[in-house]
Amino acid sequence: MNSGIIRAILGKLLILLALTMVPSFFISLYYREESYKAFLLTILIVLLVGSIMAFIPAKKGKIRVQDGLIIVTLGWILASAFGALPFYLSGNIPSYTDAFFETMSGFTTTGASILSDVEVLDYSMLFWRSFTHWIGGMGILVVAVAVFPAMGSGGFQIFRAESPGPTAERLVPRIKDTAKILYITYMIITQVEFILLLLGGMTPFDSAIHTFGTVGTGGFSSKNLSVGYYNSNYIKIVITIFMIICGTNISLYYTFFKKKYKSVLHNSELKLYLGIILVSAIMITFNLMYVNQNSFGKNVVDAFFQVASIITTTGYATLNFDQWPTFTKGILFLLMFIGGSAGSTAGSIKVIRILILFKQVKVEVQRIFHPRAVICLKVDNKSISSGILGSITSFFVLYLVIFVFGTLAISLEGYDLITTSSSVTTTLGNVGPGFGLVGPVNNFGFFSIPSKWLFSLLMLLGRLELFTVVALFTPNLWKRDQQKIRR
Amino acid sequence: MNSGIIRAILGKLLILLALTMVPSFFISLYYREESYKAFLLTILIVLLVGSIMAFIPAKKGKIRVQDGLIIVTLGWILASAFGALPFYLSGNIPSYTDAFFETMSGFTTTGASILSDVEVLDYSMLFWRSFTHWIGGMGILVVAVAVFPAMGSGGFQIFRAESPGPTAERLVPRIKDTAKILYITYMIITQVEFILLLLGGMTPFDSAIHTFGTVGTGGFSSKNLSVGYYNSNYIKIVITIFMIICGTNISLYYTFFKKKYKSVLHNSELKLYLGIILVSAIMITFNLMYVNQNSFGKNVVDAFFQVASIITTTGYATLNFDQWPTFTKGILFLLMFIGGSAGSTAGSIKVIRILILFKQVKVEVQRIFHPRAVICLKVDNKSISSGILGSITSFFVLYLVIFVFGTLAISLEGYDLITTSSSVTTTLGNVGPGFGLVGPVNNFGFFSIPSKWLFSLLMLLGRLELFTVVALFTPNLWKRDQQKIRR
Repeated sequence: MNSGIIRAILGKLLILLALTMVPSFFISLYYREESYKAFLLTILIVLLVGSIMAFIPAKKGKIRVQDGLIIVTLGWILASAFGALPFYLSGNIPSYTDAFFETMSGFTTTGASILSDVEVLDYSMLFWRSFTHWIGGMGILVVAVAVFPAMGSGGFQIFRAESPGPTAERLVPRIKDTAKILYITYMIITQVEFILLLLGGMTPFDSAIHTFGTVGTGGFSSKNLSVGYYNSNYIKIVITIFMIICGTNISLYYTFFKKKYKSVLHNSELKLYLGIILVSAIMITFNLMYVNQNSFGKNVVDAFFQVASIITTTGYATLNFDQWPTFTKGILFLLMFIGGSAGSTAGSIKVIRILILFKQVKVEVQRIFHPRAVICLKVDNKSISSGILGSITSFFVLYLVIFVFGTLAISLEGYDLITTSSSVTTTLGNVGPGFGLVGPVNNFGFFSIPSKWLFSLLMLLGRLELFTVVALFTPNLWKRDQQKIRR
Repeated sequence: MNSGIIRAILGKLLILLALTMVPSFFISLYYREESYKAFLLTILIVLLVGSIMAFIPAKKGKIRVQDGLIIVTLGWILASAFGALPFYLSGNIPSYTDAFFETMSGFTTTGASILSDVEVLDYSMLFWRSFTHWIGGMGILVVAVAVFPAMGSGGFQIFRAESPGPTAERLVPRIKDTAKILYITYMIITQVEFILLLLGGMTPFDSAIHTFGTVGTGGFSSKNLSVGYYNSNYIKIVITIFMIICGTNISLYYTFFKKKYKSVLHNSELKLYLGIILVSAIMITFNLMYVNQNSFGKNVVDAFFQVASIITTTGYATLNFDQWPTFTKGILFLLMFIGGSAGSTAGSIKVIRILILFKQVKVEVQRIFHPRAVICLKVDNKSISSGILGSITSFFVLYLVIFVFGTLAISLEGYDLITTSSSVTTTLGNVGPGFGLVGPVNNFGFFSIPSKWLFSLLMLLGRLELFTVVALFTPNLWKRDQQKIRR
């Protein structure tokens, strides 16, 4: 472990964090809100701490995998710890635990809230809250690649740890260039959605809020009714489309831009991702037609919106889907576990892993009939080695294990099993709302303080693809030289 | 596919089935019940059909894997289809769907019932109902090995398909001997429990019923209150111990008898199985102490009983555990997915698979730090190949997929998510009772006819370890010669 370099890099991250608070500070000035003081104070604190950490000289040395894991995990924790200060210091969120939960929910692009009424918050606070989604989303896509390009192979390993998905596809050989491409794509998507929402009659402020929430697949809104506040099919459809866009592997847009259309069209993960959305939305539409009196058009819009919102782990709602029929709720619950594509800002298990696990089941059935045949598991004409399959199996199992133990821990609060299990599902999967007491019109405010910290941990675990965080708790990490590999 | 031999073997199975109904027939005579007619008629029908199938000459030929799969699957279906006749013909269960459900639940050692009042059934019907557990349990352990010993490698392949667990451990080289050993062990356990229950003051009839239910890890009782009817700690403790015994790999008793104590004591699956029971029961005891006024002793007995009942997929209850606190219900729900040991009559995923999947997670964490090291996954000092890991992964994934789609299908009935998901969990895992509307004091009678058939399929899938049944639906099976293996 190279603690000097870790400290220095985290220091630089904090300085960056201070800069990201500047827009919110100006917004507080613009709206003449008292909270400008909270932002100013936080920016000064973060700059001070960051500068001290960054500029104390550090011994030079190689950055190893474990250093990368620590930087990524602590980076998210520090950003949330300091990012919570404006809420806390301004009194907009009086409890520090709540403020930390809300900020972690922001930076992990979860969108779960402890607030029962968001409309009483200062504008600057609403802006900062949603801006953390946008930063967190970019963080997952880019920061680790852009911040550490000088580290050589160490940088690539961090990228591997941070990149959402089993394989970090290198678009172009150099990491810096990859980061740039993702960064630019992210910017373009943000700007286009912002303009389209403006054209739909949203105020510039609300357009920004909902763009941040969509692009980061976060889900914080400036309205208590979420997107349901807007009685406009145009807005619902725009947000639906952009949620789907942002749950797609962002590198595919670059591939498309390079005119490699075939490679995009034949991408198995993309096909399965869109297929799941289509089939789920159609089934939900029929289920809704069966139980309510709404027009076919309204049900189609609601179904597609909600399916896109849940599978991309955004978490926006146009209505209280907790009151939808059991079949529909069952589908949504399932989608919370699937999540979006690798290489997107979406969380949860992700479509590519589900795809590979399904293919493995198919291989196994074939093996029954051909015990001696060598049957190869392939995705997009690339062989999946038993090592990668083992990785994905481990991820899948660990995801379920964390879900199970998280649920058991939260069940000690004594709420019903649906509230309990869906609260864990929705935080671990970075979705936002769940069912029952944590449904889309409710919030996480009523949980005890220890549970709120646990939820924060679950959001972090889900966002950093489990192993980044879990590895920190293994004894291996803290040994300088390891002779023996235990089994 | 060798349809002649398949037919002949299934015919012999039916003749055996007729013989297993004889004791119930005599019981109906003993109690002077009208239902003796139903048994007599059924026995004649089954004997007739079986004889025709068995004695029509068949072309000789090699029995292949797919033939074995068909025999096993159709065997269970035919046994349930004909085994349901006494209930139906006697009028004890007026609907054939219900009678089939009840019999499939018996032969798959599930113990889920459609009856709201079992105490009104004829004695002979209660006996037959519970006897199907005992036969089904033996079927899973022995029948396939004992019936097809002459088939050479084909016999071994059927044993592989039928044996509950990822690897069919060959205790002794010849299958016939293995079958005999399992058979004798099963008999001894049955007799010992029967005597111990008699000594506890149960009537001989009820002792038999509860022995069948325990030894087959089924869970049918002759009382509406299940084991809760008996206000005796002795009876509860005896049944607890025998449930645990029957959820253990039966071959371990032979190993123990051969004085290979070390091999038993160091068996990883056994240690984990007992560990889970112990830890779960302790946690539940503390949880119960926190919410109720019962004595510590009563809570300990109830906790161990219920944990043993659920993890071994028996399904007996001493009280309405659906009213226990959420944390305890969460643990029980989890245990429904774990199940007992491989090589036992217990159902569900099974401890050995959970163990191997957990070890794979550990391997993966180590791999992060040693990307180039060859880290071997070992259980009891035997290497687990990537092929076996792939098999287990496939099983685990397929199990969850069937659970998910089963839940979605049942959710169309519109009951709450806990009723819906636990009804699927408990049938697929061959447990019996679930939560909510299918809790231990309720039953499956209220479901629609299509759902009851789906539940029957789920019980069959779970009992035959999924692939045996699923493989029948793949196009591979029905092709005579397959040149190409598709991916």
